[in-house]
Amino acid sequence: MASIFTKIVNGEIPSYRIAEDDRHYAFLDINPLAEGHTLVIPKQEEDYLFDLTPDALAALMQFTQRVALAIGRTMPCKRVGVVVLGLEVPHAHIHLVPLNTEADVDFGKPKLQLTPERMGQIAQTIAAELK
Amino acid sequence: MASIFTKIVNGEIPSYRIAEDDRHYAFLDINPLAEGHTLVIPKQEEDYLFDLTPDALAALMQFTQRVALAIGRTMPCKRVGVVVLGLEVPHAHIHLVPLNTEADVDFGKPKLQLTPERMGQIAQTIAAELK
Repeated sequence: MASIFTKIVNGEIPSYRIAEDDRHYAFLDINPLAEGHTLVIPKQEEDYLFDLTPDALAALMQFTQRVALAIGRTMPCKRVGVVVLGLEVPHAHIHLVPLNTEADVDFGKPKLQLTPERMGQIAQTIAAELK
Repeated sequence: MASIFTKIVNGEIPSYRIAEDDRHYAFLDINPLAEGHTLVIPKQEEDYLFDLTPDALAALMQFTQRVALAIGRTMPCKRVGVVVLGLEVPHAHIHLVPLNTEADVDFGKPKLQLTPERMGQIAQTIAAELK
């Protein structure tokens, strides 16, 4: 069965898209730790990040870098943190989290509740920076 | 002034070394969240991970992948998580944290206190797996 992220890539589940190329997809996390919290995934359905081929991992990270730099230029933050946990959804995904303090990366804390309008604005702002 | 990590690479500050090549160095975090918690760094002193060139980032991640796979094969964990925060030491570093639950990545929780003997055993175990 397709993972929830494959359904997002295929448009069966809607997402706030940030960027896409032939092998990768980036979209806003709907339970964000901060405004601009983004997930980056390979379109290939691989459970564990480190089971990607070295070439696929390198390409994913270079795509992630472009997205992270655009987030850093558009969202108020000191820099963009990276987290890969991967015990819940069996499709590798990289969290990019705008950080002002190291405590901003705490997946146990309550997530932000943003309106669809605000999520759409954020996605458009970051996506425009990538063009 | 050289960063604390450059001093570790140069041997001016001791470390529990896991792996090294011409451009990268991996060693145990001395304030670990779990046994086998490792830091991977580029020898080049670059503050922000995403300011590395795309080629340097790709090489760093492929080195990190080899280290993470060796940690996963030797430390009791479901998989190895990845965290890059980077607001404290101005030299890019990737945390590799053996995970059993997503809550294992909580930098606010008390760190493990391991003896030098145990740290040495862990480093040797992971390093041997990489050979």
